[in-house]
Amino acid sequence: MTKKVVLAYSGGLDTSIILKWLQDEYHCEVVTFTADIGQGEEVEPARMKAQAAGTKEIYIEDLREEFVRDYVFPMFRANTIYEGEYLLGTSIARPLIAKRLVEIANETGADAISHGATGKGNDQVRFELGAYALKPDIKVIAPWREWDLNSREKLLAYAEQHGIPIEMKRGKQSPYSMDANLLHISYEGGILEEPWAAPEEDMWRWTVSPEKAPDNSTTLELEFVKGDIVAIDGQAMTPAQVLSYLNKVGGENGIGRLDLVENRYVGMKSRGCYETPGGSVMLKAHRAIESITLDREVAHLKDDLMPRYANLIYNGYWWSPERELLQKMIDASQVNVNGKVRLKLYKGNVIVTGRVSESNSLFDTSIATFEDDEGAYNQKDAEGFIKLNALRMRIAARL
Amino acid sequence: MTKKVVLAYSGGLDTSIILKWLQDEYHCEVVTFTADIGQGEEVEPARMKAQAAGTKEIYIEDLREEFVRDYVFPMFRANTIYEGEYLLGTSIARPLIAKRLVEIANETGADAISHGATGKGNDQVRFELGAYALKPDIKVIAPWREWDLNSREKLLAYAEQHGIPIEMKRGKQSPYSMDANLLHISYEGGILEEPWAAPEEDMWRWTVSPEKAPDNSTTLELEFVKGDIVAIDGQAMTPAQVLSYLNKVGGENGIGRLDLVENRYVGMKSRGCYETPGGSVMLKAHRAIESITLDREVAHLKDDLMPRYANLIYNGYWWSPERELLQKMIDASQVNVNGKVRLKLYKGNVIVTGRVSESNSLFDTSIATFEDDEGAYNQKDAEGFIKLNALRMRIAARL
Amino acid sequence: MTKKVVLAYSGGLDTSIILKWLQDEYHCEVVTFTADIGQGEEVEPARMKAQAAGTKEIYIEDLREEFVRDYVFPMFRANTIYEGEYLLGTSIARPLIAKRLVEIANETGADAISHGATGKGNDQVRFELGAYALKPDIKVIAPWREWDLNSREKLLAYAEQHGIPIEMKRGKQSPYSMDANLLHISYEGGILEEPWAAPEEDMWRWTVSPEKAPDNSTTLELEFVKGDIVAIDGQAMTPAQVLSYLNKVGGENGIGRLDLVENRYVGMKSRGCYETPGGSVMLKAHRAIESITLDREVAHLKDDLMPRYANLIYNGYWWSPERELLQKMIDASQVNVNGKVRLKLYKGNVIVTGRVSESNSLFDTSIATFEDDEGAYNQKDAEGFIKLNALRMRIAARL
Amino acid sequence: MTKKVVLAYSGGLDTSIILKWLQDEYHCEVVTFTADIGQGEEVEPARMKAQAAGTKEIYIEDLREEFVRDYVFPMFRANTIYEGEYLLGTSIARPLIAKRLVEIANETGADAISHGATGKGNDQVRFELGAYALKPDIKVIAPWREWDLNSREKLLAYAEQHGIPIEMKRGKQSPYSMDANLLHISYEGGILEEPWAAPEEDMWRWTVSPEKAPDNSTTLELEFVKGDIVAIDGQAMTPAQVLSYLNKVGGENGIGRLDLVENRYVGMKSRGCYETPGGSVMLKAHRAIESITLDREVAHLKDDLMPRYANLIYNGYWWSPERELLQKMIDASQVNVNGKVRLKLYKGNVIVTGRVSESNSLFDTSIATFEDDEGAYNQKDAEGFIKLNALRMRIAARL
Repeated sequence: MTKKVVLAYSGGLDTSIILKWLQDEYHCEVVTFTADIGQGEEVEPARMKAQAAGTKEIYIEDLREEFVRDYVFPMFRANTIYEGEYLLGTSIARPLIAKRLVEIANETGADAISHGATGKGNDQVRFELGAYALKPDIKVIAPWREWDLNSREKLLAYAEQHGIPIEMKRGKQSPYSMDANLLHISYEGGILEEPWAAPEEDMWRWTVSPEKAPDNSTTLELEFVKGDIVAIDGQAMTPAQVLSYLNKVGGENGIGRLDLVENRYVGMKSRGCYETPGGSVMLKAHRAIESITLDREVAHLKDDLMPRYANLIYNGYWWSPERELLQKMIDASQVNVNGKVRLKLYKGNVIVTGRVSESNSLFDTSIATFEDDEGAYNQKDAEGFIKLNALRMRIAARL
Repeated sequence: MTKKVVLAYSGGLDTSIILKWLQDEYHCEVVTFTADIGQGEEVEPARMKAQAAGTKEIYIEDLREEFVRDYVFPMFRANTIYEGEYLLGTSIARPLIAKRLVEIANETGADAISHGATGKGNDQVRFELGAYALKPDIKVIAPWREWDLNSREKLLAYAEQHGIPIEMKRGKQSPYSMDANLLHISYEGGILEEPWAAPEEDMWRWTVSPEKAPDNSTTLELEFVKGDIVAIDGQAMTPAQVLSYLNKVGGENGIGRLDLVENRYVGMKSRGCYETPGGSVMLKAHRAIESITLDREVAHLKDDLMPRYANLIYNGYWWSPERELLQKMIDASQVNVNGKVRLKLYKGNVIVTGRVSESNSLFDTSIATFEDDEGAYNQKDAEGFIKLNALRMRIAARL
Repeated sequence: MTKKVVLAYSGGLDTSIILKWLQDEYHCEVVTFTADIGQGEEVEPARMKAQAAGTKEIYIEDLREEFVRDYVFPMFRANTIYEGEYLLGTSIARPLIAKRLVEIANETGADAISHGATGKGNDQVRFELGAYALKPDIKVIAPWREWDLNSREKLLAYAEQHGIPIEMKRGKQSPYSMDANLLHISYEGGILEEPWAAPEEDMWRWTVSPEKAPDNSTTLELEFVKGDIVAIDGQAMTPAQVLSYLNKVGGENGIGRLDLVENRYVGMKSRGCYETPGGSVMLKAHRAIESITLDREVAHLKDDLMPRYANLIYNGYWWSPERELLQKMIDASQVNVNGKVRLKLYKGNVIVTGRVSESNSLFDTSIATFEDDEGAYNQKDAEGFIKLNALRMRIAARL
Repeated sequence: MTKKVVLAYSGGLDTSIILKWLQDEYHCEVVTFTADIGQGEEVEPARMKAQAAGTKEIYIEDLREEFVRDYVFPMFRANTIYEGEYLLGTSIARPLIAKRLVEIANETGADAISHGATGKGNDQVRFELGAYALKPDIKVIAPWREWDLNSREKLLAYAEQHGIPIEMKRGKQSPYSMDANLLHISYEGGILEEPWAAPEEDMWRWTVSPEKAPDNSTTLELEFVKGDIVAIDGQAMTPAQVLSYLNKVGGENGIGRLDLVENRYVGMKSRGCYETPGGSVMLKAHRAIESITLDREVAHLKDDLMPRYANLIYNGYWWSPERELLQKMIDASQVNVNGKVRLKLYKGNVIVTGRVSESNSLFDTSIATFEDDEGAYNQKDAEGFIKLNALRMRIAARL
């Protein structure tokens, strides 16, 4: 018997229907939780709607700083990309929501949580694995897997029947299923279900097209401390400020659009379009600062493990012990990742034009130089190096 | 006692000096080998220069098709990138040169080979590991590691002293150390030895800057068979034709510039700038066609092993048994990588706008759809999937 | 509507109950499939029992050679061990059963298959992943996940009620849940559910204890061709003969007992005891022949991927494309794994006392020797080798 | 100009010759460093010999506790094995020696270090990589790579000529090249250079043969805290005491002999025999305690990375940043590895007979049980788990 359930509530049509449906089906009290993680929509309106639906306990929170500081930045320390392309914008927001759902359940004495993710997607997995890892005996109610409102028509009929106002944003404005937070906005569904069809230009919301971006480039200097950006053009910023700013200038310069077919954890391929302007800038810059501050083998170790780490995040294992172990190693690798990167943004391009680290640069011109190095490097050493590396192949070739 | 040596001879100043130096120091006969691998310079002039220097056996060969078909394409089947950025343009040409040097040594009865790579770089390793793997008892003469001509002045003095014409191309025209083949052109040295300094615009040779690229985009349709491009815009092409064409349209659209600091196998960091217009297009397109034709776990296995495979190529282990094993697996993965990718090239951007595979698409709209799937996928299955994946974490959390 | 189902039928109590239950619950025809994969029990009696239960289509097959040749041997080429200890004896038999179930379904026009594996274990996963991979629209009936006969008492009551003779072997003789095939016999349940409790001596069936093994050792010479054993002590043998013989001499010498706690794919830890006498001998011998015939980096590549390959088999992904790709690479690595290994078996120990390969040994005494090597190896090469390998660390340490 | 060199001095013939040779060739002062790392020979006699040779600064140290605590135990936390067999007994001692050589160089103002490892082996690499990583501008003198005393005869002649007493242990007593420390003793050379020849029984020094081991087994209870053994049979012990004790009882029971062909970092294969009685016990026990306390995916992550970590140690990269990063992760994984393991030692066998962890066991009988679990695990969940894991393969199979 479920007595009280914490619902991840956006204030939109779908979760408003869920709110009602939970009350009716489970005869339980619903606590709503609405977070500002940078999706770019007001969260306060959710309060009134929740109240109107009879909700007594309403949580509305600004989690933007926590989101970027504790989730986005740690992920970028690993140069994380899923399947060679995707910057994991949706994936990385779910663990934070899962954590808050569980914490609110603890605070309010709720015995269940609920969310509006469908049974076909990755998000259900991310919410639920997180919740179970943090509170193993929590009950999870996933209405999309339970009810029979499996088409837009049925949903609208249900809304009408139960007096839920349907002039809600998402349902109206877009033929796409969208998700947004400070790292990205995503689009699925509609014509995107045909992988040969290009997305319509008016789908994109955060970026101008490269074609429409300004004819003049924008130059940025990003300062890194321990692998995280702490200042832009000399101006200290908080993590959320960094990402907001980079989203703005990145978006203005047509940066960060992505259109791909990805493999979902639940087994099917799925087409998605993403806008990740700030993240695209951060990834490029982070690799650049690492290129002069990271030991080669440390960098290669990170590269070797990156796809595994990306999988963990994509599949919803943020709160798993193996992700935490990998994070420890990744974070430890960043101690010397300090310095500055100069970038040029221009019509969709992120161009590194300089990288420097006052105290941690491993780039040693005296050794690398093509000019006379005055004995810093003994070229004759290379002969022995090659000879011994070749030895096993020579022995084999002699057979 | 070396009697005859096969020299990788470009016809430029450096290898002309080496040619003379080998004759003088080793009192041996020199066979010159000059290959057209798409570096964009005439190879025939090398014949006269070699003859003028008294060379009797002169090999001048057009290896462009072999280079792309047997080296570049196999590498791109793995989506190979070194250190997250570098497309391995120089690395992939060396094994072919090494192989031909050895074959020519066998044909001409030479007991040694020689090359013009310095003792600080990766290329010496790539040439020599290849040679040793293919002919274990070959002698390798690497003049840069032996002689004391370790500055431009000494080289020029030597040339003058021995009557070697110094109006040679490379020494004159550029302050950079360059290397080119059909896949890319690279720049090192000069002001690039300062990682904070941006390269000068007039350094770049194969691409226009994104700023100077046309205001109209170019659309391409690439057809893949077993992971390789076999036709562009409906026109069948050989491998070298494919790459030449993509270099042309890529370069015109400002695509493929790269500026990075990389880790050399011999232990130091080094700044390099690269132009890889065609390769940049191919990588993006190959990932796109794989995204609909490759099984998820096969794709992930490839991604997990890619950095290792890239290391092998970068470090010169093309002819090693471990590279050959990996290649077998990579090639086997490409059997179903058939179909078409539509791309838009615009001012430095390579934008995928469609991918389709008539007979090998694993993208199943009937399952992926957000609309009613008529039972193709049972959403309730997700509950068990999540529950069992969560089980180990729940047990741990209960402790 | 299920019309005909192929049942993996052992002839034992559990699957006899399932046979009846399928007829009653699904009102469908049942085809029985009983295979001899070396479990050490007669399979013919299953025919009468199946007939007595009204089965019209009865498949009874000797799959021992196919099992060892196409499943066990390929797995041993990779030196496969799960979680550092387990030789995957149960796991490797399931794909063969799954394949035959599907083939028989195709032959008999059945639309479903059924098996007697519980919903808690790995075997259900292995059967069903295999079946779905080979025949995607097959229906799978897993009675243990459906019925309410979830205790021994209920099972026996059902048997009695439906006239199923309960003087069956497995239920009677052992408090353990057992599984056997030519590679191993396994024990679970009973007192093993307490990990601090040692198994009782009389549990073990295939091996004597080391204490009771003979005081004299047994010496064997195993001959390998392409990584597989083809002869023992000069006597050519088929794969199943090899494994049978090694089981016999291994078991007599107290070899191959294992007692461990392992992690199941479905999420819980489980205690298992295993006897794998022949497999234990094969693993040790295979590593020994590889030690002289395999290139170092090939061996390391195999070692790096082995746990992943083991996971695939343990988790039931034998028929997956990623396992097949890995297998291609593993098999290709074995081309030169030819030669002989001498072993001593003594009271639980498998001791390698010699390995030799006439045409494929990479062990080169002239280089390895501590004596004067007459210039085969230039010790001075080591200095350059070390210097360049140290370079990155020296640059870092200077900071 | 080398002024003062710190020599890793065993007091044996070889390093006594080196001591003299350094004085003569380099005209420099020599500081001797002799460490007791459990090799089982007195270190004090080295003092007199060093004094007799005119050494003014003599370091003689008991490093056994440091060796086991800071090197052996951390390595065993990873279940480290090189090439499937070798427990890295020699490899793990070198980093400690390298560190002390550098520290003593710092203390005594020496500008160089020297060691007695040959140019063919791994040990030179381990010493020198360590030294360079810790003190990048140290000079390393490796006499075996420099001098022409490349045979036993020449060495003895040199000794005689310079009045070095040759009644030294190692040269006399064994035809094998040996190395010992608290973890193991190794044998190379002599008849071992023929891989088909079994070692002679009288070669082994630390263990009796299984045949000669007692007819009664020995039972041990090992207590682990954070992955390290802290007590045996209820008796608290220091790390070195633990290993000494296990060496003793292991050796008495014929445990820990190993005979293999391994791949050296310098490129050749080499035959080695090893006795690692205590280490063999520790490895088995550590896996057993991890089997109930470690999360599955953490265990698999460790297993996947183990060969890489083993390579780092084998190849001499203990003091590299990548080893240190991996160690951080490994150590972090051990927080919950607490509990007891019961073992039986018998004639070469290490048999786990129980494992228990009061507060960290993840083994949950209520879920694992074959009996009625009263709803702890819902078998129906398995269906969805399998269905979604199979989905990608089903889609592919439908093509």
